[in-house]
Amino acid sequence: MVLTKLSSIQKMEEGTIVTPAGFQAAGMHTGVKRKRHDLGMIYCDVPASAAALYTLNAIQAAPLHVTKASIAEEGKLQAVIVNSGNANACTGAQGEEDAYTMRREVARELSLPEHTVAVSSTGIIGLDMPMDKIIPNINNLKLSGEQKDAAAFNESILTTDTETKATCYQTEVDGQTVTMAGSAKGSGMIEPNMGTMLAFVTTDAVIEPAMLDIALRQATDKTFNCITIDGDTSTNDMVLTMASGKAENESLTPEHKDWPVFVDLLEATCEDLAKMIARDGEGATKLIEVAVNSAHDDTQAIKVAKTVVASPLVKTAVYGSDPNWGRIIAAIGRSGADVNPVAIDTSIGTVKLIENGKPLPFSEEAVSDYMLNEHVMISIDLNVGDGSGQAWGCDLTYEYVRINASYRT
Amino acid sequence: MVLTKLSSIQKMEEGTIVTPAGFQAAGMHTGVKRKRHDLGMIYCDVPASAAALYTLNAIQAAPLHVTKASIAEEGKLQAVIVNSGNANACTGAQGEEDAYTMRREVARELSLPEHTVAVSSTGIIGLDMPMDKIIPNINNLKLSGEQKDAAAFNESILTTDTETKATCYQTEVDGQTVTMAGSAKGSGMIEPNMGTMLAFVTTDAVIEPAMLDIALRQATDKTFNCITIDGDTSTNDMVLTMASGKAENESLTPEHKDWPVFVDLLEATCEDLAKMIARDGEGATKLIEVAVNSAHDDTQAIKVAKTVVASPLVKTAVYGSDPNWGRIIAAIGRSGADVNPVAIDTSIGTVKLIENGKPLPFSEEAVSDYMLNEHVMISIDLNVGDGSGQAWGCDLTYEYVRINASYRT
Repeated sequence: MVLTKLSSIQKMEEGTIVTPAGFQAAGMHTGVKRKRHDLGMIYCDVPASAAALYTLNAIQAAPLHVTKASIAEEGKLQAVIVNSGNANACTGAQGEEDAYTMRREVARELSLPEHTVAVSSTGIIGLDMPMDKIIPNINNLKLSGEQKDAAAFNESILTTDTETKATCYQTEVDGQTVTMAGSAKGSGMIEPNMGTMLAFVTTDAVIEPAMLDIALRQATDKTFNCITIDGDTSTNDMVLTMASGKAENESLTPEHKDWPVFVDLLEATCEDLAKMIARDGEGATKLIEVAVNSAHDDTQAIKVAKTVVASPLVKTAVYGSDPNWGRIIAAIGRSGADVNPVAIDTSIGTVKLIENGKPLPFSEEAVSDYMLNEHVMISIDLNVGDGSGQAWGCDLTYEYVRINASYRT
Repeated sequence: MVLTKLSSIQKMEEGTIVTPAGFQAAGMHTGVKRKRHDLGMIYCDVPASAAALYTLNAIQAAPLHVTKASIAEEGKLQAVIVNSGNANACTGAQGEEDAYTMRREVARELSLPEHTVAVSSTGIIGLDMPMDKIIPNINNLKLSGEQKDAAAFNESILTTDTETKATCYQTEVDGQTVTMAGSAKGSGMIEPNMGTMLAFVTTDAVIEPAMLDIALRQATDKTFNCITIDGDTSTNDMVLTMASGKAENESLTPEHKDWPVFVDLLEATCEDLAKMIARDGEGATKLIEVAVNSAHDDTQAIKVAKTVVASPLVKTAVYGSDPNWGRIIAAIGRSGADVNPVAIDTSIGTVKLIENGKPLPFSEEAVSDYMLNEHVMISIDLNVGDGSGQAWGCDLTYEYVRINASYRT
């Protein structure tokens, strides 16, 4: 993790998405969902450099098209409107129109050019947006830089997440304090929907949109792209970053001496959110972390880590606190990475179970006891190269089956 | 399915692996497993043309190395010895030696060249083979051409399968009757192991090993490679075919006029076994069949079908008899196949739920009632080409979690 590499990055325990200079937030209940907050907004008092990544699913919801169109214009955003309860996906021409209407109404309310507004939705798919609930409430969103309104935003983007997900870090760039914060939602399930992942990251760093895009891709590959709940990806997934530029550092590029610090700042922020999403996977009781070392290269290390953490057999074994190394070995073998079967070492926690591809004697009771923890660490050494990587997931439980098999009954 | 294409292929309800001319079988209990049969053999009274396919897992168990070596010699087999209860995987040099010892002892007992004997194992991994139980019992295997001994073989290869899996078909090639039969085991779970798939196919057709290999690859791609229980593949998976040549047809090659009939015969046999394996997936209550039409090509159609049938969200929805079309659409979208989001049609049973990518009104109750069946059919039309393909899987249940999370307690 980043913090061991660069002690110059500090976690801000009380920080939120409004901690970076220039940002305000709001969240409220409009009635799209029965009781909880369902409409939120992030606002920046200047045009912020923006970059976003979207689901790789070939079927993308209307709000993604609108956000892409906004950012494509000049790479700047001043507001993002987010609703939960309805994903505006598989809604055809009406859905496109509704997403553009949301953008237009926010722009009008805040006196902004339309293309500086992004739109994001999560929830039920295939139903038209309840525009009668959303549109009249846009001017009821009370933007502020107060923690309580950031907290209201954090709530407004949730679906069946069991808790809000937020983090904040600080560092120095050119001697200036740069703050970054994030808010995310994970794999909740809304009838009849798949889980959607949304993450919003704010920072006051000075950075051009194209450079922010580079940093975001780099950080996402090592964080959000390394978590898996059940392998299903949504039509609505989005990671969006906005940089206000109020920190007054020299504009960040890969040539800037503090570029690695900035990328680490972004990686730390995204990694926190990614782990919170993994830990809050449906029905999950544990976070599983898989670290792979001495792979052929980093890409192969991540491939092995993701295959192991996504294996239903590994996930159920972790749920049952069962040190079932055979399932780990099998997942490594089918990952597609270069492996030498007689060179693999594997540990659960600090106990080595496999050395040179063969099982070692170990205390099943001790390892099983360790696996009762909420955070279970699996370490793999392939001993074929210098690559390393990590992935995060959660256990597979009765509750996962209950949530997903019986939501209507 | 084959039977609608070629009525010349007939199912033999009472047929077994000893129905094709030239084959005998045996199965018995040796004590590797506590109570059930755990050692079996198929014998052919002449050297049979042989072809086999093996797990793509980079970590392959010792018996696979031995079987490959045997077939590599001249493409002929006369016997295959199979044990359940111990997979002889992750057992290092001792495991290799044990597998070769099994081959040598069978060859000695039957007075065969060693390279005409194949070895197959399934069960616990990482433990040395209980050779003291297996070797002394090789001469206790009572080979015969009787149904009861084929049934004993079918039992001897099971791990936690809930039932034996066998099928038999007949057709005519050059006016000669050709019979083919198969026996398989599916995704049982043995501590601490992953599920292993084994299938053995016997036929009396005349065909050279290299041609049999072509036909087997073709049939396997459309059958065994299209089933998924949970995406995990084993170190021990093997599909093995033996052709005695006693049917006296002209030797089959792709140029033979009846080659398509033979391939269909093999496909019908493999498809039956594949579906039985899918239906008997751990904790499964239902067989899920996904048929994809009008894809860009057959490969893409199969890709979509496999992605849908493997989706944990689709699997839990089927368990809950929940017509959750959103999860099907999401799986189609992330399959990696070419799709046009506004051209997709999807049905469950005979009821169309999605047309041109948008949900249709339908009776949830009627579709949910249909989904209470043990065989749930999902049909997808992508409307972008002429490709078609199928895949089979099973629902994801509480029982799956129970079996895999709590085998030790």
